[in-house]
Amino acid sequence: MKQLLAAADLSKDEIRFLLDTAKKMAPIVRQDGTIPLLQGKTIVNLFFENSTRTRTSFELATRKLGAGSLNFAASTSSVAKGETLIDTARNIEAMRPHAIVVRHSSAGSPHWLAKNVSVPVINAGDGFHEHPTQGLLDLYTMEEKLGTVAGKRVVIMGDIAHSRVARSNIHLLRKMGASVAVCAPPTLLPPHPETLGVDYAYRPEELLKDADVVMALRIQLERQNRMQIPSLAEYTAFWGMNQDRAKLLKPGCIILHPGPVNRGVELDPEVADGPRSVILDQVFNGVVVRMAVLATVCENEKLKAWLAGHGGK
Amino acid sequence: MKQLLAAADLSKDEIRFLLDTAKKMAPIVRQDGTIPLLQGKTIVNLFFENSTRTRTSFELATRKLGAGSLNFAASTSSVAKGETLIDTARNIEAMRPHAIVVRHSSAGSPHWLAKNVSVPVINAGDGFHEHPTQGLLDLYTMEEKLGTVAGKRVVIMGDIAHSRVARSNIHLLRKMGASVAVCAPPTLLPPHPETLGVDYAYRPEELLKDADVVMALRIQLERQNRMQIPSLAEYTAFWGMNQDRAKLLKPGCIILHPGPVNRGVELDPEVADGPRSVILDQVFNGVVVRMAVLATVCENEKLKAWLAGHGGK
Amino acid sequence: MKQLLAAADLSKDEIRFLLDTAKKMAPIVRQDGTIPLLQGKTIVNLFFENSTRTRTSFELATRKLGAGSLNFAASTSSVAKGETLIDTARNIEAMRPHAIVVRHSSAGSPHWLAKNVSVPVINAGDGFHEHPTQGLLDLYTMEEKLGTVAGKRVVIMGDIAHSRVARSNIHLLRKMGASVAVCAPPTLLPPHPETLGVDYAYRPEELLKDADVVMALRIQLERQNRMQIPSLAEYTAFWGMNQDRAKLLKPGCIILHPGPVNRGVELDPEVADGPRSVILDQVFNGVVVRMAVLATVCENEKLKAWLAGHGGK
Repeated sequence: MKQLLAAADLSKDEIRFLLDTAKKMAPIVRQDGTIPLLQGKTIVNLFFENSTRTRTSFELATRKLGAGSLNFAASTSSVAKGETLIDTARNIEAMRPHAIVVRHSSAGSPHWLAKNVSVPVINAGDGFHEHPTQGLLDLYTMEEKLGTVAGKRVVIMGDIAHSRVARSNIHLLRKMGASVAVCAPPTLLPPHPETLGVDYAYRPEELLKDADVVMALRIQLERQNRMQIPSLAEYTAFWGMNQDRAKLLKPGCIILHPGPVNRGVELDPEVADGPRSVILDQVFNGVVVRMAVLATVCENEKLKAWLAGHGGK
Repeated sequence: MKQLLAAADLSKDEIRFLLDTAKKMAPIVRQDGTIPLLQGKTIVNLFFENSTRTRTSFELATRKLGAGSLNFAASTSSVAKGETLIDTARNIEAMRPHAIVVRHSSAGSPHWLAKNVSVPVINAGDGFHEHPTQGLLDLYTMEEKLGTVAGKRVVIMGDIAHSRVARSNIHLLRKMGASVAVCAPPTLLPPHPETLGVDYAYRPEELLKDADVVMALRIQLERQNRMQIPSLAEYTAFWGMNQDRAKLLKPGCIILHPGPVNRGVELDPEVADGPRSVILDQVFNGVVVRMAVLATVCENEKLKAWLAGHGGK
Repeated sequence: MKQLLAAADLSKDEIRFLLDTAKKMAPIVRQDGTIPLLQGKTIVNLFFENSTRTRTSFELATRKLGAGSLNFAASTSSVAKGETLIDTARNIEAMRPHAIVVRHSSAGSPHWLAKNVSVPVINAGDGFHEHPTQGLLDLYTMEEKLGTVAGKRVVIMGDIAHSRVARSNIHLLRKMGASVAVCAPPTLLPPHPETLGVDYAYRPEELLKDADVVMALRIQLERQNRMQIPSLAEYTAFWGMNQDRAKLLKPGCIILHPGPVNRGVELDPEVADGPRSVILDQVFNGVVVRMAVLATVCENEKLKAWLAGHGGK
């Protein structure tokens, strides 16, 4: 595995390898240890969209592996001077980093990049397309809490049409044997949801009672103005994950959210802070999952030796 | 001491410990050495107000202790997307940093943060309330030049009403036995200055001849427009620390300023660059004082062992 | 050599030393090695103009030497609050960094800075004046490809009047024995080009057939609005380095560009990506040349010992 462009590209074995690797790394990270597999290496964060959260998670993962980060923010870089994405990337490549983590508003730009540079590329979110490391950390969190997702029911609620998080999760969850349902007002569902290989419903009440996992997505506030939802109040009343709806859930059902949460919109504060919520576990798991991804694409051989020395594979 | 929220909270012993620790660290830092008490740890700088100066000082202090900084600028973070301060902080906490250094325009926000996260919080300035590390570095600088502040007279000139620096200094100086007077036009004094435990005067001439320390505060240029001062020219004429007023000072009296200086407004260039000025000492001392604070809140046990190996205490 | 303010100040021996040093460092950097001559030191990047590219190159060079960078962006620093350049620099100096890398829109500001601080200053671009590390990396790249520039013909095309890159290159190239010609529409040539010690022509066809090196400069898009060029289309038609003009070149002639490239304006994509182009070599060479500069100004003694241990010099 020399890159991570889309969850759709990952085989079941590759997913298993990444999650198992993260799982072995987690206890060391939890005790402030480092796993210096990338000592002296440089990881470039090439972010054309602002994202302190994801960028910081990659930065921490980079540091825990003994490497250093270089941050390129598009607003202050040559891109603002009219340089093409490829020229920017080739210039970065010429400085000899060991991987490029890219976030861009255009779907497919990480693939375009990967075709044009020889260094590993990791997709940290491309338009409405994919956000594979988010999908992996969500899956990791579900396995951590439920043991496995095989045979489990995952309900994703919110703006499915415009969510790269939903898309990456659906690819991963289906490959690992989960059944997935999505729920949103019709304007926030893609035209033919069944082509994603998922069930769907317009109202959460139809789905919640069977769920093992509920994932509430962030409602982008600008959707309101574009008339995709009538008002936030209406969204909250009919689709918000509130205490009444939480009562419909089975014992043991967990609630995820990729953050940042609009408290009181898609998620009630009581639910966000309640016992079912694993939102903060997701944040911690994001660091170790990204460590596994970075080590795999940059130093697969060293990583394999490390894994062998830590209880086999 | 597991946090530093306000100078008002510090006991005399705690102040003494922090200053003595900084004093032991200073010669090593002066010779480019490091004191790796926080090796491998991560300090988050969570700055909701821009401040290259204070942030950089914390960043250097962090590095000299062997740790790494992660910078969260509010403008590019999830806060801009509507996330609450607590959610931001909890997310940061979930990434397992070892301390959070916070600057925020709302008085009390570091306290609010500290109640909601389990990691040590250091206040790097909260509204008009406090800026405790600035107060500590000012006190350190006075002791460095005068031996002690006990029995000494400190005159603070400028915008007392809106200055967190003044407030932190007054708390620390009074605890350490100094007598403090403040001087400003009435519109820049708080309603009842005597409740701060300080003397006050409207005109500097009444206070300067007895001063052992003069601290000139920065005049925020926007005060002019809000009619709190009639004009900068008038402020400078009546309250500016110029060469004529410097002639009133006793030999040995030193002049501090927290920076950045408005040259020719609150401080004449000749005075700012003159022999009484210790402004650049303050900048260097800021790094070692912040090292002492970070080491104390993050690794008090290791710090004590280090101090024991460096001449006791 | 305790600073690098202008290519004009460098003697032929100093240029030789810097290039030879970079040449010895290059193979180690190419294999991801580090040369920790500045272990534990701090280099401040004080950038008053945005430049991700140059700043990143310095940051990488800093890291490869074992040191750490501190980035001061003018937009978020005290400069925005009205502090003078000198006060900013003195404050930075008081934090005891080991060098200051400065970019500023005013010609001569690095010299002004160097007079007022005791720490080494490196000019990373000052207005229309100089950009000496760019000149050095260009020269390094020419030597790498051509062996020597002595007796060679270098043609610089584009906005000569406003280019600090052109200016630094001309100084260095002439000292090293190259003959230089510049080519641009009259409005983009300085008033008396011959005072630069170069030949000039208004049309590239007159110069290209004798060139050993062609350097195309970036056309600042705002020049168009200021009526210095009639339109980009016209510039491209008459002065752009396109495939037809490339056919006039001798075999072995190389093409440089300081980046970022306006594809299709000053450089045709086919030429930029063609076999004569050494643009990406320039980027890699920038890192090692800046390593040589940083090591020379910060640690000349250690550097000499290192050079002695690596084949003498």
